[in-house]
This record gives sequence, structure tokens and C-alpha cells, in this order.
Amino acid sequence: MEKYENLLMDFYELTMGQAYFNKKVQNKVAYFDLFFRKCPDGASFVIANGVKKCVEFLSQFHFEPSDIEYLRSTGQFTEEYLQYLSKLKFTGDMWAVKDGTVVFPNEPMITVRAPLVEAQLVETALLLYFNHASLITTKANRIVRSAKGRAVMEFGTRRAQGESAAVDGAVYAVEAGASGTACTVAGKKYGVKTLGTMAHSFVQSFDSEFEAFKAYAESFPDNCVLLVDTFNTLKSGIPNAIKTHNEVLKPMGKKLAGIRIDSGDLAYLSKQARKMLDEAGIKDAKICTSNSLDENIIESLLAEGAPIDSFGVGENLITAKSNPVFGGVYKLVAVEKDGEIIPKIKISDNSEKIINPHFKKIVRYFDKDGKLITDVLYENNEVVPTGRLTLKHPTQSWTTKDIEGYSCLDIRDKMIENGKVITTLPTIKQVSDNIQKELNTLWPEALRLQNPHTYTVNLSDKLAKTKQDLLNKAKEDNEKL
Amino acid sequence: MEKYENLLMDFYELTMGQAYFNKKVQNKVAYFDLFFRKCPDGASFVIANGVKKCVEFLSQFHFEPSDIEYLRSTGQFTEEYLQYLSKLKFTGDMWAVKDGTVVFPNEPMITVRAPLVEAQLVETALLLYFNHASLITTKANRIVRSAKGRAVMEFGTRRAQGESAAVDGAVYAVEAGASGTACTVAGKKYGVKTLGTMAHSFVQSFDSEFEAFKAYAESFPDNCVLLVDTFNTLKSGIPNAIKTHNEVLKPMGKKLAGIRIDSGDLAYLSKQARKMLDEAGIKDAKICTSNSLDENIIESLLAEGAPIDSFGVGENLITAKSNPVFGGVYKLVAVEKDGEIIPKIKISDNSEKIINPHFKKIVRYFDKDGKLITDVLYENNEVVPTGRLTLKHPTQSWTTKDIEGYSCLDIRDKMIENGKVITTLPTIKQVSDNIQKELNTLWPEALRLQNPHTYTVNLSDKLAKTKQDLLNKAKEDNEKL
Repeated sequence: MEKYENLLMDFYELTMGQAYFNKKVQNKVAYFDLFFRKCPDGASFVIANGVKKCVEFLSQFHFEPSDIEYLRSTGQFTEEYLQYLSKLKFTGDMWAVKDGTVVFPNEPMITVRAPLVEAQLVETALLLYFNHASLITTKANRIVRSAKGRAVMEFGTRRAQGESAAVDGAVYAVEAGASGTACTVAGKKYGVKTLGTMAHSFVQSFDSEFEAFKAYAESFPDNCVLLVDTFNTLKSGIPNAIKTHNEVLKPMGKKLAGIRIDSGDLAYLSKQARKMLDEAGIKDAKICTSNSLDENIIESLLAEGAPIDSFGVGENLITAKSNPVFGGVYKLVAVEKDGEIIPKIKISDNSEKIINPHFKKIVRYFDKDGKLITDVLYENNEVVPTGRLTLKHPTQSWTTKDIEGYSCLDIRDKMIENGKVITTLPTIKQVSDNIQKELNTLWPEALRLQNPHTYTVNLSDKLAKTKQDLLNKAKEDNEKL
Repeated sequence: MEKYENLLMDFYELTMGQAYFNKKVQNKVAYFDLFFRKCPDGASFVIANGVKKCVEFLSQFHFEPSDIEYLRSTGQFTEEYLQYLSKLKFTGDMWAVKDGTVVFPNEPMITVRAPLVEAQLVETALLLYFNHASLITTKANRIVRSAKGRAVMEFGTRRAQGESAAVDGAVYAVEAGASGTACTVAGKKYGVKTLGTMAHSFVQSFDSEFEAFKAYAESFPDNCVLLVDTFNTLKSGIPNAIKTHNEVLKPMGKKLAGIRIDSGDLAYLSKQARKMLDEAGIKDAKICTSNSLDENIIESLLAEGAPIDSFGVGENLITAKSNPVFGGVYKLVAVEKDGEIIPKIKISDNSEKIINPHFKKIVRYFDKDGKLITDVLYENNEVVPTGRLTLKHPTQSWTTKDIEGYSCLDIRDKMIENGKVITTLPTIKQVSDNIQKELNTLWPEALRLQNPHTYTVNLSDKLAKTKQDLLNKAKEDNEKL
């Protein structure tokens, strides 16, 4: 398991904890949902990821003596509370979707049930891990889908927002379908495939481009991909690459593996390059491209018929540049009182920030071909009805839809029980496979990059009534003040 | 010193290294410049940061036995090369601007002079540290400037792109002028001020809003900031905050420190809140706000006269959301041959990607009031002329500008010599002070957030000629092919 930094928490979690402790409500059982409100990039779904880190984090959660010492030094906490924290572990339960699951806005992808203080203290870490992993996985998969089966390589380390963004991001990219990464430490730590050939500086450091290509070909005759745009792609780079094939590789019984173009009009240059390579009889040489690529540029290059075999994608993937924030939130949805679950609501002055209260489950409905029809949120103890089902639209309540002949299942697993991990955490390969399996349940129209078909997430009648009752009660309470 | 991950490198640095090693050119001395081409957010300058991490990284650079083992396992490298790497250290020199220095596009903020392999292998790490630190520092300082002296608090951990983005980002925010951070581990590790009070879940977890406020006030009577928007800011939150002041704090001889509003129309709500608090006689209570703030929203809130005392800024700061990539690059600019420095150029099919060749220095010119006039790039061994100076515009060469009565200085220091650190690395406080000092050298018009005055970076006549000669030569070479 990774080493986790347990003080990766917002300071307010500790001050709230102090107030709970003083009021002796620290062991009141609370339910928190982790969900998001909007898919990035106008997509219709998100690929959930990072649950593995969340499970690991909770399973090892504790304060080191140096953590307690730091907290003491802030002068904000009582000695009794610090003593209490020094012995604290996570003793609660956690339900979550598997890493790689397709999810939609307002679904509780993770629910934590735990003593109030424990649930509160882990808020920031769970959000950070889930948000970052889901953000990069979802973005990387958009890019992989845009390449329509061609290789995508993750090249973004130098533009990542810190070391963990680089290393974890490389893993998420591979899980999402990238062929490999340039990030060497990700290869060492996680066994993902590492790739790379040369930079412009390599070419410049020799007295001529051909000498540089020759040196590389002699060192890597089996995987000789040459960067051809240091001086002039068509006039110098490709002619020198062909010369390297003919004069260096051929005599060794090898051939040019490919070229990389990193600037200029990639559609035009790749077409010319293909022609020049084919005419030189090097039809197997691949054309790799890079230079601020993203899913829209790749889609447009392929639509223009650019004969590109692989795409190196840097900053736009590793930072999810077009939408670099994944807005997962972690909200209290219920507490237990005398063994009974009391649903809770947060109202807010922005109506879209009103939450779905209560301890819930997500039931996913599939048609007879295994395609996803819809998700319905039920209260956890509700019996899921069978047979013909009338779905009410979650916001446009005058719209209904009937479904029958479906199969359905609760898409979350209980992963932690009384602080113990009761699930097997997936390997990178398993997450990757799960993503493919999940994408196969979607209609092609939902996979479209622009303006996709959207799914609705419905509330069961019972849950909708619970929510309305809480809203009415809050309104009454306000009017009493 | 931090623990650094030495395999934080792009795989191509290692393959290029193998080819250099095979050609026995690994010890050829090379010069690499780290620079960027465009300021984020349409700004006229960037605040350089992260040099400290670059210096530390270089000073400890080495391969662990487990790194070598991993590289061996890829099957890409010869045993001789792996043995060579296992003993490698950074033995070169490094020049850089101080952390906190104002810099402009195309300036060599860092120059590395080192044996080719060493300079090449550290490319990705230097870029990652410099890019991330400069990105967040520059963005955070924009936000701090927009608040015109009011407090800005860094609240973004949960939306950061990984742990190091959260922790390092919190430090960069404080260096840029933020009053503190919610990121507790940043407080523990770096001594920056940590802040925080309560979340909506705290309020929800009690039977009523007033009970929650009462519990918090009793625990933190000296710093009682209450979150007032869980149910209804004006009808419930602020009345309950006032009640808490009157019924809980006043009897203890304390007063309400402030309220926080996290949703709704912050201009309207803060005005109403100020009125209600003042009418209740709590004129000292501060109004804190949060909810997807950035420099543009803060500027607009203050322009509307919103009586806000402090701003909690999350995702827009910690990810530099509006422009989440800082495009620093690291390019070969010269090599040494028989003790002589040979300038090198990269041309590219995008003309803006043509680099400034040669080993250079940045000379900054100030007027008699200490305000920055311009920067000029000279070849490093050029004698900087004195007296009246005619500056040629770097791209519009028909435009010239004469300056005299100036003072000038080379803004870079030699920080590493033969692999040894010969500078004292700055503390957080020193970086912060340096940023303030640097900003004071700029005209207010350059500090404007929208459409600021821009500075030009000029090339000395000698450097301009060197560049033109290299371009002409490359053109000739292409025509010969």
C-alpha cells in the first residue's frame, strides 16, 4: 500500500471535530455522500476512479505523534481532544462504485457511514483522491476514444501540477486506455509501460541532423522513431530519416520504426510524410504526432484523413486543461438517532446546490441487450420494485417514462465494514478492463464527444417524498424565526 | 531538504542518454535554457518560483539501486550505460533568477551548463517544479491583488490535482500573499498559517442551526466564524449568528468574529449581512465569502461595493483553472567544443517556436524611480554598454526606443557551481518579501488584471546577429539537401 499523509485535511475538519468532542457528539453515526453535480467537457458521464486510494486511505487512517504535536502547536485544540485524536482510527463503513464505473451527476458514488468525527476528518482526502482520479481518467478516455483505436501516449509530466499529478495521472491515463506513458517513475512504481525516443535537443546537440539520427539508429535499431521537425520537417527531417533507414538501419537488417512530428500543420505534414516514406519503400514506418493535442484536435485530424498512427498527448490530458476541476463534493445526508436513520438536507441559496438526502442506493437498469437505460436512486432500505416501472424525471416532474423487460442491479459494493476492508482492490489492468466493459453498456450516442445523449438519474417516489418533506419543513422553520 | 524522486524523468531522456553514451559524447558540455513563451491569463508578467526545488533536486540528483533495477527490467539499456548511470551525479552549473522575480516571455529564467547527459536527464524535473510553482504563484498573486489588501485564504485542497499540488500549491499561495491555507499538512510541513472553521455538515449534524452555532461558539469563543448559508442566509443564518453573539458569546465576554457566506449572490447578501450585523451592534464581525471565487469575481464584487473582509478561494487558485498549464520549455542553446561556446538553434515549423540561441544573461533596466523599463538579453560574455542605449524591438525591428539615466543589473545568480550549491535558498517569508519588492518595480498599468501594459524583452545587437546567422545557415543547409 502507498504511504498516505493523514493530515491531508482541511483545518476546519479539526475545529469541527473539537466542537463535536466538546459536545460529546463525536460518536453520533453520520452518513456522508460523495457526488458531483456536472460532468466536465459537456460529457454525459464520468468514469469514476480513485476509490482504491479512498479505501486504502480509510483503512490506514491515524494520526502520527508528529501530527498531534503540530496540532498542539496551533493552540486551537484541547489536550483531551488531542489525546482522543492520537488514538483515532476509521471504524466505519464505506459503500462505493468500482473504479472504472460510468457514473452520472448527483449519484452517491461513495457513501461513508461512521462516527461523526471520523467521517468528517476524512472529507478532504476522499475528495482529493476521487476528484483527481476521476477527472484525469475521464479526460484521458475522451482522448483515447477520439483516436479511434490508434495509440495514445501520455507525455505530460513536465506540465503536471506537481509530482503526484504526474505519476498518478500517468496511471489514470493508462487505465483509461493510453498505450503507455513517458513518466518513468510511474513505470517503476506501478509497472505501466514507459515510452520515449528523443527531444529536439538531441538533434541539435550533434553537428548535423543526420548524425543525430544515425547515433540514435545505432543505439536503438529495433525501435528507431526519429523526431523530424528540429529544422524543417519536409526538407530536412524526413529526407534525413529516409537516409537513416537506407544507410544505417537497412545494412543492419532493420528498418525505421517511425517518425515523430511535433510542430506545424500536422494534417498536411503527416500526409506529405506518408507519401515520402511510402515512396521510399518504408511503408511500415509509423507516423507519430504531438504538440498540444486533445480530443478535439485528434478528431479533426482524423476527419481530415491525416494518416497518423499514434498521438503523444501532454498538457491537455495531464491537467485536463479544458476543464481542470472535478467538482466532487462530500455532504452529510443522514444521522442515526436511537438506531433510526434521520435524513438531513442542505438547502443553500443556489437551488442546484440542494442535496438528495438520506442513505441511498443506486440501481442501474439495463435493456435486454445490456445497454444502460437509466439509474434510479432509492432509499437504502427500499425494496426495489419489479415489473413495469414508471420513471418520473428528476426535475421536470410532469415527464414520465415507462420501462419493462429490463434487468437491474445495485451498482455499489460495501467495501469497508467496521473499518475493515472487505473487498479486493483492483489492479490497473482490472480497472482498465472495467472501463471497457462499462463503456460497452452505453449507447454510441452517449459516447459522442460533442453534444452527447444524456442519461437522467431518477429518484424513487419514496426518496422524492422524503426530499420534498425536508424542504417543506426547512421552509416552515425559516418562517418561524 | 525534501525527498526527491529521481526517476521523475521522461523516458526519452534515458534513451537519448544511451545514444550519447554509445557515441561517447555524454560529457560534451551543453547549455540548456528554461523559458516560457506566453504569460497565462493575458498577463504581462509571470512570478518565477520553484527555483528552490530545482536547486535542491540538482544537488541531490542520483539513481537509487532500485531505479537502475527498474531501468534494466525495461530491456532498453546496455549494462555499461546502467553502470554509468548508477554512479552519476549532477556536476554542472546553474544560473537562475531568484524565486519571486518578475519575468517575461522568452527570458532564460534558468540556464543549466553541464555534461550533455546530466543536463538532459534533469529536463523533466526542472520543468515540472518550475512550471507548477510559477503557475500557482502567478495565479494566486493575481487573486491577492484583486482583493486590494483584504485577506485571501487558500481553500483548494479537495480540488487539487493530487497531494503535491495541494500541499505545494498552498505554500505557493502563501508566498504570493495569501493569509493562510486550509491545507493542514502544509502547515505541519512548512509552517504556513492554517485556517478554518466549519462546513455545512457541521450545521446539519445538529438538530438546529442555532444549536450548531452555539456548540461552535462554546468551543471557539475567540475565533467564532459561523457559516450562515446552510438553510437560508438572511432568514435563518444571520439571525442565528446574531442570536449566538447575544446569547452565547456576549455572556462569556466575547464577540462574534465573523460569518461566512458560501452561496447565493455574494454582493447582495454581504450588503444585507453587514446591515443586519451593524444594526445588531456587531460592527467588528467580519464578512468572509467563498464559492468559486477568482480574481475577476473578486474585482467585480469590490467594484459593486460589497462589504466583504476576506475571500476563501478554492479550485480557481489551486488548479489555476482559467489557464491551468504553464508552458515552460527547456531547450538546448549551445554546446562547447574545444572550450569554445557554439550557439545552437531550433527552428520548427511554427515560427514562434524558434528559440534564442547561445549562453545568455538577462540585464534589467530601471529608471531613476526604480521602475522597470525593459529587459535586454545579451550574450553572456558581452560587455554591457553604458550611457544612452537604443533598443530595437525584438520582432518589429523598425521600431527603436532610446533610454538613458537608467541603472541596470544582471538579474540572475549562479546558484550551482560544479554540482555544489553556492547560494542560500530562500525561506517562504523571503520569497514572499521578494515578490512584493519585485511588484513595486512595475508600473501600476502592468499590474492591471485586464489588458495590462506589456514589457518587451530585447536582444542585444550581437545576440540578434548570432540568431540571424544561425537561421540563415540552417536555411542554406536545407537548400543543399
